[in-house]
Amino acid sequence: MTARLVSSYCEGEWVAPGAAGSEIFSPLDGALIGSCGDGDINFEEIAHFARTHGGNALRAMTFHQRAHRLKALATYLNERREQLYELSFLTGATWRDAMIDIDGGISTLFVYSSKGRREMPDSKIYRDGGIEQLSQSGNFLGQHICTPRLGVGVHINAFNFPAWGMLEKMAPTLLAGVPAIVKPATQTSFLTQACFAMMIESKIFPPGSIQLIAGGIGDLFDHLGAQDIVSFTGSAQTAGKLKGHEAFTVEGARFMAEQDSLNATVLGTDCTVESEEFTMAVREVVREMTTKAGQKCTAIRRIIVPSNLTKEFSKAVTGELTSISVGDPRNKETRMGALVSHRQKTDVLAKAQMLAEEAELVFGDREQFSSHEGAYMSPLLFHCSDPDSATNIHSVEAFGPVATIMPYRDTAHAIELVNRGGGSLVASIFTNDNKLAREFVEGAAAWHGRLYFANRHTGKEGTGHGSPLPHMVHGGPGRAGGGEELGGIRGVMHYMQRTAIQGNPDLLGAITDSWVRGSQEIHQGPHPFRMHFGELEIGKTFRSKSRQITLEDIEHFAEFTGDNFYAHMDEEAASANPFFPGRVAHGYLLLSFAAGLFVDPDPGPVLANYGLDNLRFLKPVSPGDSIYVRLSAKEKTNRNEEYGEVLWDVELFNQDDEPVASYNLLTMNAH
Amino acid sequence: MTARLVSSYCEGEWVAPGAAGSEIFSPLDGALIGSCGDGDINFEEIAHFARTHGGNALRAMTFHQRAHRLKALATYLNERREQLYELSFLTGATWRDAMIDIDGGISTLFVYSSKGRREMPDSKIYRDGGIEQLSQSGNFLGQHICTPRLGVGVHINAFNFPAWGMLEKMAPTLLAGVPAIVKPATQTSFLTQACFAMMIESKIFPPGSIQLIAGGIGDLFDHLGAQDIVSFTGSAQTAGKLKGHEAFTVEGARFMAEQDSLNATVLGTDCTVESEEFTMAVREVVREMTTKAGQKCTAIRRIIVPSNLTKEFSKAVTGELTSISVGDPRNKETRMGALVSHRQKTDVLAKAQMLAEEAELVFGDREQFSSHEGAYMSPLLFHCSDPDSATNIHSVEAFGPVATIMPYRDTAHAIELVNRGGGSLVASIFTNDNKLAREFVEGAAAWHGRLYFANRHTGKEGTGHGSPLPHMVHGGPGRAGGGEELGGIRGVMHYMQRTAIQGNPDLLGAITDSWVRGSQEIHQGPHPFRMHFGELEIGKTFRSKSRQITLEDIEHFAEFTGDNFYAHMDEEAASANPFFPGRVAHGYLLLSFAAGLFVDPDPGPVLANYGLDNLRFLKPVSPGDSIYVRLSAKEKTNRNEEYGEVLWDVELFNQDDEPVASYNLLTMNAH
Repeated sequence: MTARLVSSYCEGEWVAPGAAGSEIFSPLDGALIGSCGDGDINFEEIAHFARTHGGNALRAMTFHQRAHRLKALATYLNERREQLYELSFLTGATWRDAMIDIDGGISTLFVYSSKGRREMPDSKIYRDGGIEQLSQSGNFLGQHICTPRLGVGVHINAFNFPAWGMLEKMAPTLLAGVPAIVKPATQTSFLTQACFAMMIESKIFPPGSIQLIAGGIGDLFDHLGAQDIVSFTGSAQTAGKLKGHEAFTVEGARFMAEQDSLNATVLGTDCTVESEEFTMAVREVVREMTTKAGQKCTAIRRIIVPSNLTKEFSKAVTGELTSISVGDPRNKETRMGALVSHRQKTDVLAKAQMLAEEAELVFGDREQFSSHEGAYMSPLLFHCSDPDSATNIHSVEAFGPVATIMPYRDTAHAIELVNRGGGSLVASIFTNDNKLAREFVEGAAAWHGRLYFANRHTGKEGTGHGSPLPHMVHGGPGRAGGGEELGGIRGVMHYMQRTAIQGNPDLLGAITDSWVRGSQEIHQGPHPFRMHFGELEIGKTFRSKSRQITLEDIEHFAEFTGDNFYAHMDEEAASANPFFPGRVAHGYLLLSFAAGLFVDPDPGPVLANYGLDNLRFLKPVSPGDSIYVRLSAKEKTNRNEEYGEVLWDVELFNQDDEPVASYNLLTMNAH
Repeated sequence: MTARLVSSYCEGEWVAPGAAGSEIFSPLDGALIGSCGDGDINFEEIAHFARTHGGNALRAMTFHQRAHRLKALATYLNERREQLYELSFLTGATWRDAMIDIDGGISTLFVYSSKGRREMPDSKIYRDGGIEQLSQSGNFLGQHICTPRLGVGVHINAFNFPAWGMLEKMAPTLLAGVPAIVKPATQTSFLTQACFAMMIESKIFPPGSIQLIAGGIGDLFDHLGAQDIVSFTGSAQTAGKLKGHEAFTVEGARFMAEQDSLNATVLGTDCTVESEEFTMAVREVVREMTTKAGQKCTAIRRIIVPSNLTKEFSKAVTGELTSISVGDPRNKETRMGALVSHRQKTDVLAKAQMLAEEAELVFGDREQFSSHEGAYMSPLLFHCSDPDSATNIHSVEAFGPVATIMPYRDTAHAIELVNRGGGSLVASIFTNDNKLAREFVEGAAAWHGRLYFANRHTGKEGTGHGSPLPHMVHGGPGRAGGGEELGGIRGVMHYMQRTAIQGNPDLLGAITDSWVRGSQEIHQGPHPFRMHFGELEIGKTFRSKSRQITLEDIEHFAEFTGDNFYAHMDEEAASANPFFPGRVAHGYLLLSFAAGLFVDPDPGPVLANYGLDNLRFLKPVSPGDSIYVRLSAKEKTNRNEEYGEVLWDVELFNQDDEPVASYNLLTMNAH
């Protein structure tokens, strides 16, 4: 194999590594496979290029436009992913490990594309929460919005997920409208670079949207300011050092860290050796120890088991570990590949030695593979009989296939032990007792970014202790870095600035592409249901004629629908109800009559009413009262070639112009 | 006047200042009014006392229980607020200034109490967002929750709002379930302490919930860890220093800063001398310069005016400033009181000198009051003709009655200038042009925590450029500190930890006091509408008999309601619609029949159906199809002595058990 030059990509050009770049050796056989770093890069200029070229181009798009490009990118990479598998073996990863990294990364792009289109507006400004009424008459309102930060997202990634690590940070960043500079870890940078090169080749995102720094980041931090964001994945030690940089303490750049942590799994007190949860927990522990050779920031490091089951649990895990074949990851039979490098293996063994001071080795051989050219090692399972006085097992992370079993007395003790990690990315609990689960949440949630509950009901559907999903927050307090990534649209917000907007209804509407109650109504032109999606103006309003509700209507409706609730049918009983003056019209009668008042019957652009939100009945309607409807086009969201969705603001008023009901109506309107 | 000893309140005891405490002098006449600090405090112990005594007691309550106590506290303080006014004069504040501080603080408690009850559950666990579907069959789901951090909230406050500053931080902290340690600024600590003493005397919050450190915080930060939160208000310089402390960079405590910033106001290009917005802007500038003698972190420092109007605007502001009487704040006629101290005045004049290097003084006399015993000074208005090359006017904050007018060429230039502050708490724009407003938002929102738009429509209802409201976020990027306070429930979240929970439906329901779709249904016992609020179990379910929908039903409903939409009435036209197989039942017909199927008619605990949420029609119902209903009690929220609210999860199914509609029904149920 020829050594690869891992190039950077800066200001639209590939930059080869320099003479002083680092050499990268294969973890499989020690052969030189590439060199990386020391390229001729002006860090101030690439940050500037990102903010101007990339930022301006991205901000010119709406959230939906960016989401569509994410989908195109995911599709493009998906068609080429097998090329990346070949390189992935050179990181020590097995086929299954490669899928987690590569397919997992691509799937994150797909999920963000989908969430961006479903949960964000087709607009440049995101509404955060609802309107706040700040004055009595409603002429002065508040609305929080989020807009893209005018800076660059700098992504500092760890070696263990060269594809996923890049893509999971990039998806929310680009969706936010912020350009990214990616800095992969040197040891596996060749895979990141190969994936990145596909993205450039695809030309899907505009120039300056993404850049790559293979090697060190030089003086980049000295050029970061208040609008920039650094998202770091790596060790607690490095994060602590970076956080103190003036870019963050003085200039006001945002810093988010996702650090390795001492993640734990707990077997609930309700479990027995025979229970399904016991077997599931054993399987999960073995999977977490051996996937990526245990080099996962979410991997289980501490196994907390009821003291009466420790021996059996340890035996069961040992039994499973015996069948794990360690070796060349290119071999499909291999269950565990190599560590990423010899350096990493040396570090893991040193950390294992610290665990050995407090715990005995119950499975594995630290000497196995000691003379092998590849960075292979045996899984190591420790048992610590006194986890209360031990400290290393709760604080020293051997970032490899290493975990420690420890006993606990009761649930309170288990909670205490699981929290001893000082903050983790994830803890899992195997239990079929919901009360116990709740006890865990109340006692431990504040120390963990994610709590994963598994039992006979979740069964095979559970996505796994160690798998961050794009839907759920990834990150945790304290030792885990205090940061958050992913979590759906929450992850996008890290790259945006929230701003409180105060003003009058029309102005807020103009800013948020929405009709806000109290704004001007547009009355000219045909009935709004006769207007195609594109023609329909936000604020287009229909005010219906009025209709009287008679006692006969109420009685007829009751008989027809079968809804003979006493508030509609019995004057005396209705009067005794604290909310009603006497018999009143059914709420659904009002809704139905309202539709009769505003619907335009003939075929036209409105294809269907697909739902209704926020319906509130505000004032009872008595026999003899009249109602009329105001219907205003509030928001529009294009969906496909055929139609878009329209959200209507609807109010029903009585003969005294008092609102009696209020809701949002949802229709699909043809183009 | 006798000098007051400003005591601390630690571990349930008042601690008097020590011999080396700071002396506090009156800003009105230089007299000694008190001493503060150097008390005998063990900072490690008070943090521990807060976390254990205060934290445990607060976490034992639900959000609603804590919200009720906030209301009781607000009421208690409100009845005693006049006592605080007397002390407020000794901070240099006028009557109006005192109201902003004291009444403003109390009102923040009221708003948080109300929002806590309306927007948070009556539970110990807050649901953040909805259920995430993580598996196909729905047996494995995700839900984000927030729980109180297990630490202490340390509040470091500025001198300018001794009451509001304490209360606006305390309200969200206590609502979150987190104890607070308050550290007021020494110069005005006597007022904070007086207000704090009332809170202790009220006994409304349990011991350990609130403690007070008058004077320095000693080694407190050395004892903070991953679960603690520091919320700081003050100068950028101090914040920068604090942020670098290992409590934050290594231990993982949260740090939030709200710093003074170079807030600006802009007069839109649409304004003329005659326009209402011109007059409003002049009034606002004068109010911002003189309220609290300009000692507000949100005050207008930079006045950005179209170049053709600068002269007129300057003249108008000058005219108004002439009528501002500066003097003893106890005098009701006084429009502007004293600065908080001579030291502060010296600092402001020094900063004004730096502005004078780039701008000319157009109003005010820096020598006025120079030999006065009180810390009085004249308002100072500067004019800078070249704001592009100037730097001090955009970066040096004279924290007193000082502001600078500057001209701009066009809106792009105004945006550039307003952003030159490097991040601010608030910018205001006076404009009656919504397009211009949108341009401002797109160009400037990312640099500002709040954008305040005022015009003839907002008129007198506008709450003011400089007033942070509990509903809206207070804080801003960059120079403003990068933190956030208030903003309704957003402000509570800073004191909580978000955790992603994964598990099966029943388990998630047990954790969140909610029935989650896919959970077990409780069928035993009477019809759920026959059960009182307290008896009704979450998960109690009613499955109705089924009812066929005939073509006659559809035609009858159409005629009765007037809803003759073609999809219900015209087979051919309906078939041409992409969503319908032919004529289908009205959505509201389904809703109405569903009510007929589940309603229990006789008087009983269900008092009223007050609304409906998230209605989606999932599948068309054709003539001849049947429907039946599943109705399950999903969530309960107690409201008062008489009744509580029940949220029902409702699904309509057809004869093939396919869901055809889904919604949440809202009822009020008697106790």
